[in-house]
Parts: sequence; structure tokens; C-alpha cells
Amino acid sequence: MKILVISSSLKQEHIDKISRIAESHGAEVCFTESEDKLPTGFEEPDIIYGFGMNIAKTNKNLKWLCVPSAGVDYLMKPDVFANDNCILSNSSGSYGVTIAEHIITVALMMMRRLTSYYGAALEGRWETTHWSQSSLKDSRITLLGTGDIGTSFARRARAFEPDKIIGVSRSGMSNDPSYDAMYKIDSLDDVLPGTDLLVMSLPSTPETNDILNRDRIFAMPEGSYVVNVGRGNAIDEDALFDALECGHLAGAALDVFKTEPLPSDSRLWKTKNLLITPHIAGNLTLGYTLEKNVDMFTEDLNNFLEGRPLKYEVDRKKGY
Amino acid sequence: MKILVISSSLKQEHIDKISRIAESHGAEVCFTESEDKLPTGFEEPDIIYGFGMNIAKTNKNLKWLCVPSAGVDYLMKPDVFANDNCILSNSSGSYGVTIAEHIITVALMMMRRLTSYYGAALEGRWETTHWSQSSLKDSRITLLGTGDIGTSFARRARAFEPDKIIGVSRSGMSNDPSYDAMYKIDSLDDVLPGTDLLVMSLPSTPETNDILNRDRIFAMPEGSYVVNVGRGNAIDEDALFDALECGHLAGAALDVFKTEPLPSDSRLWKTKNLLITPHIAGNLTLGYTLEKNVDMFTEDLNNFLEGRPLKYEVDRKKGY
Repeated sequence: MKILVISSSLKQEHIDKISRIAESHGAEVCFTESEDKLPTGFEEPDIIYGFGMNIAKTNKNLKWLCVPSAGVDYLMKPDVFANDNCILSNSSGSYGVTIAEHIITVALMMMRRLTSYYGAALEGRWETTHWSQSSLKDSRITLLGTGDIGTSFARRARAFEPDKIIGVSRSGMSNDPSYDAMYKIDSLDDVLPGTDLLVMSLPSTPETNDILNRDRIFAMPEGSYVVNVGRGNAIDEDALFDALECGHLAGAALDVFKTEPLPSDSRLWKTKNLLITPHIAGNLTLGYTLEKNVDMFTEDLNNFLEGRPLKYEVDRKKGY
Repeated sequence: MKILVISSSLKQEHIDKISRIAESHGAEVCFTESEDKLPTGFEEPDIIYGFGMNIAKTNKNLKWLCVPSAGVDYLMKPDVFANDNCILSNSSGSYGVTIAEHIITVALMMMRRLTSYYGAALEGRWETTHWSQSSLKDSRITLLGTGDIGTSFARRARAFEPDKIIGVSRSGMSNDPSYDAMYKIDSLDDVLPGTDLLVMSLPSTPETNDILNRDRIFAMPEGSYVVNVGRGNAIDEDALFDALECGHLAGAALDVFKTEPLPSDSRLWKTKNLLITPHIAGNLTLGYTLEKNVDMFTEDLNNFLEGRPLKYEVDRKKGY
């Protein structure tokens, strides 16, 4: 049994931990920083932890691919796996803390006009305008997507004394006390007119394509805000542009886009009140996220090597 | 009894509320946007709500000045009041929510490198560097100043699952469950070496001058952060500059400075990892803050007109 780990983020303690588990099960493990630098003898591994898509495409021997990302949309196309029966697992669950902190930060940067004040400071200007501000306090927050990310955000947002936090999801169910109410996705149109801050953390699937379309953007109240940390497919970017430019939305913060990197000639760069971040909300550079990510893989590595089902397996047909 | 209200922020509902109270007690009230536009007959009011320092200086008839700010350091000098017995009250208690949100925002902007990512976005650049990040999760937070502002922040920070939140104050006491421990100010030197994020919200008094001096800044751990939303007198700015430039501190966010506005030729503008905001953490442009501010004044207006002691009176000798 050969295990290939592809990562430039791992620390020695993570390498040791994975090695110990492999060794205790008589498996071989090898660490590399990228798919381009494959050590001899590891061209056809049984298990990959990391972004090993080129190998998955040609290696019929691959039995399990564990990707360190939460989203797996890029693995749902045909011809991604040479082995039709290859198991796929993801790392959804390791990003909740870091992405929740991202959402709070960008939402408050917009509401408190820190985008403008910080922009002035970068130019060495003491800005004296006192712009109108908004607050998480007493705001009506809707989470479209209530997985690890949405719920981690809801738990933090609760401390800011919002008016209410509504969750909207496929199942319409959650046991987490951070939500005041939960709705199914087909109730989205009822919820949006009462939403001051919409936080989107959806996976990319055919059902989520342009789920925030023009009608829905303009059904939100004037002066409301949108944050998207899920996937760029979920928003009609042209409609968002129009809603920001005409002032219908007070702000939007996008970490994900239909095309990434966002092309340098995209008009989104200069859109009024649009806060752009380059898909960094869930970087592995936060120590806690990396810990959790490795913990999830090693938990499933034990499961796999001892013949148990994986805890973090993704349904390769459904895409989540 | 003549009441002068000086404000450019009040809405009609606030004007109505104040007028009703005045009228029901047989007092006259007059509203103006600045001290320069005084209506006839109100040159020597008995009560002022607003920044009426020029009048206080000359009007021996002034019995009560209520300022809409939390800090009152600028009123502690000699010759500020023509009437030695003039009562002073402030609006400490109305800024907790808005300044707590400011602190969370700037702390996370620094920890998550959004200062850099947003700076790149303003230049139209998709920044691909994955800088090392920090998190409020598992961080050791020390609050120097545990009044309304510090405690409002502590309540919110608690939801981010920090390692601990330590309060340091004059009394060393608090009943708020958001603190893991409370210390008196003379224990500050014991606390700083175990502090990842120091949040300062102190009034300006002789005791707080340069309380964060060079020794204390360098006693903090390498890679730690400082946020100051109190008054600029509390930090040795030269030492802070050195600690940031040499990388000892990972970041600092200052909303207050020894000299305000910060002079355009100050080297602080270009200091490494220094996030500057122009004394806007507690703007009255947030609706909730303004509501609370007016509520506090009207509560004390009823007290004053009915002969009871004021709830928000400031000790003019102590300065708080």
C-alpha cells in the first residue's frame, strides 16, 4: 500500500503523524511538494492526500483521493478519475473557523466603511468624512448554506446581537441554536426581502448556478450587503455589478468568482462598494485550519487502512 | 431654564423627544448645528448637550454640560468652565457596540492579512501570496481598559473561541463572565508577555500617559498585535514605530494619536503593518450609537429637571 502526500504546507509534526500511522499498518508513505516532483516508485500510489488530479486521471490503481479543499466541484467532471471506483474525500469541516472570521471581517469592513477609511490611510490621508454606518447589531442576517462554514459564522455573529439569523439550506434543518429559523432553499424568495446581510457558502453544483440571480438581488432591501465565500458560480455577476453601481446594494464582498483569477481587465475591480479578495478566505496558512485538515485525513487514513468506511467521503455523483 | 442642544447628527425623533421633556418641565429648548450659530436669547443657557466648550468658558450661568463623547480629557484643563460648580456628564456607555465592532474588524484585518489583500485589490491585483495568518481562535487577549468598550468587545471576542481573555483595569474587578481573569493595572507587566492581542481603551489621564512604553511593547511576544481605541497619549509612538519596523509586533491598529489629525508628514503613515484610522471607531453615524447617546442625555435631563443626581456625571477632578 503506497500513500502519496502532496503539500507545501505540512510541518514536521504532521509528517511524523502521517508516517507513524502508515508504518503501523505496514504502508509506505512519501511526501512531495507538487505533482511535478514524484519520487521513484510512487508513480502509481494507492492513496493520495493533496491536489493529485493529474495522477488521478491516469492512475487506475488509485483507490482513494483525499483533497485538502472543502469544494470538490472541479472533481465532478468526466475523465477526472482513471479508476471509476476511486473513493473521494474532502476536507469540509476544517475551514469553518477561518472562513467565519473572514466573513465577519469583510462584512464589518463594508458596514463600517473601513474599506474607504483604510483606502484613504493607504494614501496618507486623514479622512474627515463621517459616512453613514451599519452594524451587525440589530441586522437581519441570512445564511445561504448552513454547513460548517455558515454555522461557524452564525455562532460568532450571534455575539454581535443581530435582530435574527436565518439559515437557508437544502434540508432546511439544523440543530444548531445559532439559527433563529431554518428554511429550505425553495423559500429563498420569501427570506431575501427581509435580509440586511446575505452570506453565501454554497458548493458549486448545477442547482447553485446563478442562484443569486438578478430578480433576487433586486428583491433584497435597498442598502443591504452580500458576502460570497462559496463558489463564484452562485451569483449573476452582471446583475451584482448593476445593483452595486446604482446603489441598490450598499456593498458586496466576493472571495470567489466565475473566472479565477479575476481577469485584470474585469470591470469588477473598479465596481462601486465591491470588496474583492483573491480566494483566500480558506487559506491553509492559518495554523488551526492546517491542524484540523491533517487530523481529518489521518482519522480517515486509520479508517481506510483498517477496512472501515471513510468519515469524510464525498458522493461522487451528487458532488458533496 | 434654557437648554441648548448643539448637534448636526440628531434626527426629528430625537428633537421631538428632547422637546417633550423640556416642555413638560416648563423649560425652553433650542437646537443648533454649531456653537457659531447661537439663536438670540440662548447666549447663556443653563444646560448644554453637545460640544459647547466656547460657551462653557464664558457663561457663568451654565449649570450642566453633557458632552456626546466618552472621553472628557479635553475638559480637564483649567479655565474650561467659567462656573466652577458646573456639572459635567459624558456619554460613556453609548460607544461600546460600535467601538467593539471596530476592534474586531481591525484586529482581524491585521491577523488575516486583509490589509495586504485589500491593498492589492485596490490596485486591481489578484494577489497570489499566501501569507501566514493568525486567528482570534486560541489567541490570548488582554484588555487594558474594561469599561463599556472593553467589555462589549470581550463579549463578542468570546464567540471566537480565544484561549483566554484577561481584563486589566484600575479596580481589577468585573462581574462580566466574558473575562477569564481580572488584574489591577500594577500587574500589567506580568500579563503582557502572555498576550497575543492587546486592546487598549483607556481614558486620557496623567496615569495613562505612555502606559504602553518601550519596555512593555518589547515585553510582548514576537508576532503579537496592539489595538488602541482609547486615547493617543497611552502609547509611546516612537517605540511602537520601532517594534513594527523590526517585526517584533506583527501589527498595530491605531484610531487615536498623540497629535490629531495625524500630520501628513508623520512617519506613522508609512510604518510597516500599522493600520491607521482617523478617530472614527466611535462615530455617531451608526444609528444605534446615536439612539443610545440621546437616551442617556434625556434620562439625565429628567433627573436634572426633577432635582435628582445625574446618572452619567463625571468627576471633574478625577477626569472619569
